[in-house]
Formats: sequence, C-alpha cells, structure tokens
Amino acid sequence: MNRGYPEILEQLIDFFQKFPGVGEKSAERMALSILKLPTEEIEIASDVLVKAKKTLHPCPVCGNLTDMETCNVCTDSSRNQNLICVVEDYKSAFAFEKAQNYRGVYHVLNGLISPMDDIGADDINLDSLIKRVETLENPELVLALKSSMEGETTTLYIKKIFEGKNVKISRLSYGLPLGAEIDYLDTTTLDKAIEDRKQISE
Amino acid sequence: MNRGYPEILEQLIDFFQKFPGVGEKSAERMALSILKLPTEEIEIASDVLVKAKKTLHPCPVCGNLTDMETCNVCTDSSRNQNLICVVEDYKSAFAFEKAQNYRGVYHVLNGLISPMDDIGADDINLDSLIKRVETLENPELVLALKSSMEGETTTLYIKKIFEGKNVKISRLSYGLPLGAEIDYLDTTTLDKAIEDRKQISE
Repeated sequence: MNRGYPEILEQLIDFFQKFPGVGEKSAERMALSILKLPTEEIEIASDVLVKAKKTLHPCPVCGNLTDMETCNVCTDSSRNQNLICVVEDYKSAFAFEKAQNYRGVYHVLNGLISPMDDIGADDINLDSLIKRVETLENPELVLALKSSMEGETTTLYIKKIFEGKNVKISRLSYGLPLGAEIDYLDTTTLDKAIEDRKQISE
Repeated sequence: MNRGYPEILEQLIDFFQKFPGVGEKSAERMALSILKLPTEEIEIASDVLVKAKKTLHPCPVCGNLTDMETCNVCTDSSRNQNLICVVEDYKSAFAFEKAQNYRGVYHVLNGLISPMDDIGADDINLDSLIKRVETLENPELVLALKSSMEGETTTLYIKKIFEGKNVKISRLSYGLPLGAEIDYLDTTTLDKAIEDRKQISE
C-alpha cells in the first residue's frame, strides 16, 4: 500500500505490520523512529534478525526454543532430569524460567488437543514425550496446561497414556492469583479455588 | 537483561524495545513471531532496515524525508511550487499526502519555537524557508501548525518575518473535526469554531 512515504520507508512499515499487535499507525511510528537510532545499532539489529531466524530451532529433546544443539535446560546436570514440566508452548516454559524456582526440565507440546480445530494427539509433540519418559527411572510429570477445554482435554489424554506405567503425574493447582481482589475474580476461578482448597490445620 | 531466553532472542527483544510504545511483553511477542515468518522475508527486512537508515535524509529544498536527492514533491512539476504548506514534522507532511488533495509543496520546520524548551527560531528550519520564498514570484504560505502555545508562537513569528514582503499567508482553519459529537468537544475547540465561523448566507 502506498502511503506517500519514500519507497524504502513503505517497505519497512510493511514489515513491521507483520508483527502481532502492530497496526499501521504503530508500524509507521516504529519505522520513523529508526531515524533516531545510531546506524551501528541498526546494522547489529539487522544481523541479529537474520541470525535469530536461522539459528533458533526446537530442542530435539524437549522441543523448547534454543540456539544451541540441545537446549541449556536439557544439558544442565544440576537440574532434575526426571521431573518434566509439560507446557503448551515456548512462552510458558520461559515464564517458568523467569520465575527462577523450578529446577526440573520441560517438554513443549507446541499445541493442545483441540477437536474443534482439528488438532489431534498426533499433531502435538506427544510421541517424543512418551519415548522420553520410557528412558527415565522415576519419571514425574507436572502438567502445566491452561484451564481451558483444550488444556483439560490434553491433561486427561496424557494422564491416560501413562496409566499403570509407574509415572507420577500432577497438574498445576488452580486458585487465586497472588494479590487478586476476591470480589473481582470470575466465578469459575473461585469455584476451583474452593475445590482445590488446601488444609492448613493439623 | 536476561529473561531466560536464548541469547540471540534476548538481543532481538532488546532491539524491539527501543521502539516507541513497545514494552517488554510486546517486544517478546514480536521477537518470537519472527519464527513464523519465511526466512526470505526476514532477510529482505534485514536489508531494508539498514538501507532505510542509510538512505533516508531530509530533502535539501523542503526538509521533508526522502530517499532521493530531492524529494518527489519538490521535483513534481505538476504541483504548485509557489504554494508552500509549512508543517512541524515529516508526519504532518505525510498526513497531507495521504489525504491526496493538496497540490502545493511543503516546508518541514522540524520543530516549533518553544521558549520553555529553549528552542528558538534559529533551532528550526526557518532560514531555508526565508531563502526559498525569496526565489518565488507569487509565494503563498499555508501555516499548518498545531493549535498549541508553540504552534501559535511559531505561526505569529513566521507571519512577522514576511510582513510587508508581498507573501500571502494563511493558517489552517480551526473547528469541529468531521463527524465529531458537539457535546463531546472541548470548550477551546468550540470557542475556535465559533470564532472561525464561516458565513454561508449570501
């Protein structure tokens, strides 16, 4: 689309508009703002863009995003390789890493089972989870999937796969987010928080 | 800042965060989204980024942004080179170009006089406007500056410069934006709309 800008600027705006949540106005603002950045920074960023695209790939063990052969969580011997946190996508895994408390490893499904969207168990990264668990001595899975229809379907499916196979399985607790005002919470979360209540008396 | 992402991804997130209006979350989302774009597109964008930064510069005649020696408005003989629309910045000029009705040329001040911010008449692109006007036969200036303290100061200043020099000068009309609800408008705009009222009877 021609907006009356110089051609090279049009191309840059078109590129920025490909990003999620970036509309025409924001893309224009971003493109114009590169005029204020030092040329050296732009050159570095230009290289980083191509390098990131070329080197980032799923870890062959856990499916998480990495720029190394195997990701740094899977190769970290200080982490419990028998405790696998099963997540929907990269972002969830990185969210746990940011919290910095979890010392097990991950398995990224890259999707959830969703009959509505024609996504079955074969379409997500489950086969490699089954094979991976078979190689472990005392495997434990923490299913960290969201509490949607798709998340719960996938949780149930994984639970079934490993039934009778001596695999300890848990899911994240549902409940109040820390600091939340109770009267602002949706009723489903409140119901779950009562259902999952934790005894604190002896 | 380390967020637990692969190093190359961290660098890309850092870069995107340099753009106006892009916070950490948006930058993460943008960086991760390049995984879904074709490598070829990323390579082109990477080149465009550097090329845009290197080739875009102010037009030596009007100060507008261009990737050519002189901008395509200043070299367009079908446009009225005697009618100069004086604007604060590139974005204003491009806004008129998008509207596609204006057939004169531009002069980009690249700022407004603002004693509060220590920006005087010498700090904006005024000298070249004076010289430019001197070369024209029947120059006409449309001052298209915003209706702020700085905009009005600059408008008055330019009006004074050309006093008695046979230069026709006008400013944009103030008034209701098209489609605006009158009861939602600020009082200053309403006052201006009455002040600038246009007679429609004979």
